[in-house]
Amino acid sequence: MIIRFSHFAMSVSLALSSIVCFAQKAPRNGDPKLTEYWDPAVRVVTPGKTNADPPSDAIVLFDGKDLSKWKSDNDGSAAKWKIEGNAMVVVKGAGNISTKEAFGDCQLHIEWRTPAEVVGESQGRGNSGIFLMGKYELQVLDSYNNRTYSNGQAGSIYKQFPPLVNASRGPGEWQTYDIIFTAPMFYADGALKSPARITVFHNGVLVQNNTTIWGATQYVGTPNYEPHASKEPLILQDHGNPVAYRNIWIRPI
Amino acid sequence: MIIRFSHFAMSVSLALSSIVCFAQKAPRNGDPKLTEYWDPAVRVVTPGKTNADPPSDAIVLFDGKDLSKWKSDNDGSAAKWKIEGNAMVVVKGAGNISTKEAFGDCQLHIEWRTPAEVVGESQGRGNSGIFLMGKYELQVLDSYNNRTYSNGQAGSIYKQFPPLVNASRGPGEWQTYDIIFTAPMFYADGALKSPARITVFHNGVLVQNNTTIWGATQYVGTPNYEPHASKEPLILQDHGNPVAYRNIWIRPI
Amino acid sequence: MIIRFSHFAMSVSLALSSIVCFAQKAPRNGDPKLTEYWDPAVRVVTPGKTNADPPSDAIVLFDGKDLSKWKSDNDGSAAKWKIEGNAMVVVKGAGNISTKEAFGDCQLHIEWRTPAEVVGESQGRGNSGIFLMGKYELQVLDSYNNRTYSNGQAGSIYKQFPPLVNASRGPGEWQTYDIIFTAPMFYADGALKSPARITVFHNGVLVQNNTTIWGATQYVGTPNYEPHASKEPLILQDHGNPVAYRNIWIRPI
Amino acid sequence: MIIRFSHFAMSVSLALSSIVCFAQKAPRNGDPKLTEYWDPAVRVVTPGKTNADPPSDAIVLFDGKDLSKWKSDNDGSAAKWKIEGNAMVVVKGAGNISTKEAFGDCQLHIEWRTPAEVVGESQGRGNSGIFLMGKYELQVLDSYNNRTYSNGQAGSIYKQFPPLVNASRGPGEWQTYDIIFTAPMFYADGALKSPARITVFHNGVLVQNNTTIWGATQYVGTPNYEPHASKEPLILQDHGNPVAYRNIWIRPI
Repeated sequence: MIIRFSHFAMSVSLALSSIVCFAQKAPRNGDPKLTEYWDPAVRVVTPGKTNADPPSDAIVLFDGKDLSKWKSDNDGSAAKWKIEGNAMVVVKGAGNISTKEAFGDCQLHIEWRTPAEVVGESQGRGNSGIFLMGKYELQVLDSYNNRTYSNGQAGSIYKQFPPLVNASRGPGEWQTYDIIFTAPMFYADGALKSPARITVFHNGVLVQNNTTIWGATQYVGTPNYEPHASKEPLILQDHGNPVAYRNIWIRPI
Repeated sequence: MIIRFSHFAMSVSLALSSIVCFAQKAPRNGDPKLTEYWDPAVRVVTPGKTNADPPSDAIVLFDGKDLSKWKSDNDGSAAKWKIEGNAMVVVKGAGNISTKEAFGDCQLHIEWRTPAEVVGESQGRGNSGIFLMGKYELQVLDSYNNRTYSNGQAGSIYKQFPPLVNASRGPGEWQTYDIIFTAPMFYADGALKSPARITVFHNGVLVQNNTTIWGATQYVGTPNYEPHASKEPLILQDHGNPVAYRNIWIRPI
Repeated sequence: MIIRFSHFAMSVSLALSSIVCFAQKAPRNGDPKLTEYWDPAVRVVTPGKTNADPPSDAIVLFDGKDLSKWKSDNDGSAAKWKIEGNAMVVVKGAGNISTKEAFGDCQLHIEWRTPAEVVGESQGRGNSGIFLMGKYELQVLDSYNNRTYSNGQAGSIYKQFPPLVNASRGPGEWQTYDIIFTAPMFYADGALKSPARITVFHNGVLVQNNTTIWGATQYVGTPNYEPHASKEPLILQDHGNPVAYRNIWIRPI
Repeated sequence: MIIRFSHFAMSVSLALSSIVCFAQKAPRNGDPKLTEYWDPAVRVVTPGKTNADPPSDAIVLFDGKDLSKWKSDNDGSAAKWKIEGNAMVVVKGAGNISTKEAFGDCQLHIEWRTPAEVVGESQGRGNSGIFLMGKYELQVLDSYNNRTYSNGQAGSIYKQFPPLVNASRGPGEWQTYDIIFTAPMFYADGALKSPARITVFHNGVLVQNNTTIWGATQYVGTPNYEPHASKEPLILQDHGNPVAYRNIWIRPI
């Protein structure tokens, strides 16, 4: 009661005091320079010719010519996927391929194409995957008129989050993922400090909006986090289907 | 001490018990269907012909033909900017223009071009702005070889956050912003519940990464939040320079 | 190359220009009132006598006297747990109890005690649970020198996240949870817009730090989100052990 | 049209197929062990005798006896505040004091008391401050029936965010802050990677809920981030008023 009364009293006193009343809103007359700062200067990056082309500070992981930035994830030998046109194509049985370089937080552009000839259904049709840090899978699948479990279709964080919408193009068409990835962080004792997060545009349409990832992708059972380095290689999956990739570039952020 | 000892004892007992030891990691043998769900099904959106074209669920705010989706922000009369080619161009003195429709959380694609002929410097050169919800300004400026305060250049949240990098194209060239915007939320008593957040790609390069906005943009003094509706019109600024806009579409999310 | 050169040139010109150099940092001389605002005024809340006591704006869900704010979650009849001293105690077979009122975002204080006489082990010992919105379980368990799976011990988001540390008191001792809970949000089509988040102090020690919850708690299989109202009742679990609760209060935020 | 038709067709086929229909929801029959993991084990922390007392892993910065963990922030000499009872009290003109140790992410408990005899008003009354990392100020002020600018009262992030509510106790009474602080991170080139965040309970009442901090506190002009180390000393402010502190402990997290 006392508190309320004193507030009432204060309101009255404020109402009587034009000077104080005038001060109620943040003032908008004054020196605009007080909210301007010039340092640090912002680093210049030359954008690509189109928005799909690599900007000047990107690391080009595949430019259509060779697999020199990649190795077999099985044994570290040369990557055995094949080059067709300006694309690299999964060779069934050649296994997953991994970048030689490791990455943490990044912006990643990658283009992919499932086979024009539709074979199989659900997870059997045009299946591959992009493993950020080799652990967190963004699903690649022919999800055009191909129903599967929602948390396993194209644009999903596999077995975790469905995409917000299904923005798939058809089989045989090139599709794009534009990705912002934030790496997880761990305490010294191995406990999770902050989980991985991901934003994905599929063919220009937002399908993951700063999604919090649950842990390393698992086919069976619960995903969970186990501590790992702050940078890990990017892995592309051989799931037995001749999925093609092209124009892959990454910007550490 | 007791606690530590009992842990040590437990560790020993675990080491001696192969059955319990086996259970230490989450098991990976079992029914994979336990982590698959089909409902709800994911809504289908047909992507644009290119990633810059509007997807099937986008609201096209400007398609190059007319200003029917816009009005004068001064008095609600017809928007008085001019159409040139497939662009709409700021008419000095015509004032800011506002969408007739209101928006909250959204994905926004917008293209803009500063004059090919460079006039002025710093903030005087090719200046306009995109006000999300009519309040939170993403700066539009000719920032190509044009130094100004860092928190006022192209890609900045004006007078708040500089862009991560300067990814500007030159004067007279078309540039793009691809934006994810999350509206602020307010408690019933007007206090801020959660601030606005924004992610921006400038010409395909990440320049704002889930940035937390401080409040409505202010030229003088501190930004702060005042409660407003969950949807508000988008506003484009007449800053006196003949900046052009084209291909504007928005997806409420 | 040209860009880099021009930057170099600009740096030189800046170094030569003391006026511009002076402007590089945000100025700190000027009117301090430009960053002060008085409106809206901040609502007054009288804190409890101790930090464990309910503040003036809290809804007291249990004050030690009766179960008038609770009902059976099975059939909506009167809650059949028993009152002992200033506590309410799980009656085996009486089933879960639910608040009559529904809550969304909130600060929740709750005290609990597992039986002084230790019976059973792992999940069998002093087991109960607090289901925020009736769906998202913060585990209650006697985890004092009682090893169980990490994502199932006291302070865990059950079958999702282990606590950061095990801050348990012993059997028969009163323990506290101080909780900040943010409700999930859903799109009109049922898709998840933003997940639930939770911060928990266990006996004054931080054990969940703005943790993102994966979905409604599940004993078998993957948690996932299904759309629900923005406010839902709080539920306390009958897991068959005579766990006691007292001093429960909640502040919608 | 084709897409819609095929979806309709699929719905029909699903309705006819009880097996597939059964699979629509994530199954809840199966092995519960698939979502349990035992490693890593959770570290044990013994909580304090009360929730205000330091847990076993806390660094006690002031236990009522001496200023051995503190130094003058002016010149690094011995801290010149005085000990009275179990408290340390600001000595006007002695200047700010700083911890000898540096901290980043942390849980911080701190108790403070403004003078029982009220002198002055607004910012002149019982003013001090807690600078996390020496830069980000959580305001300490006698805000009991003492109106000042909202973003400058007790519980505010000074000149940035007002507290959610005013949970002040009166002059001469001990008050508590329980704080979760997340340090900002910076890119190698000095740009901000992620801002500082803070959660604060004032006398047990939530007043800052994972608030994003704008930058180092400034009395005049815009706050902004300048890169600094991941750990920095904690500073307490001499604002000329004899504010007292006691029972200060911190847990790096």
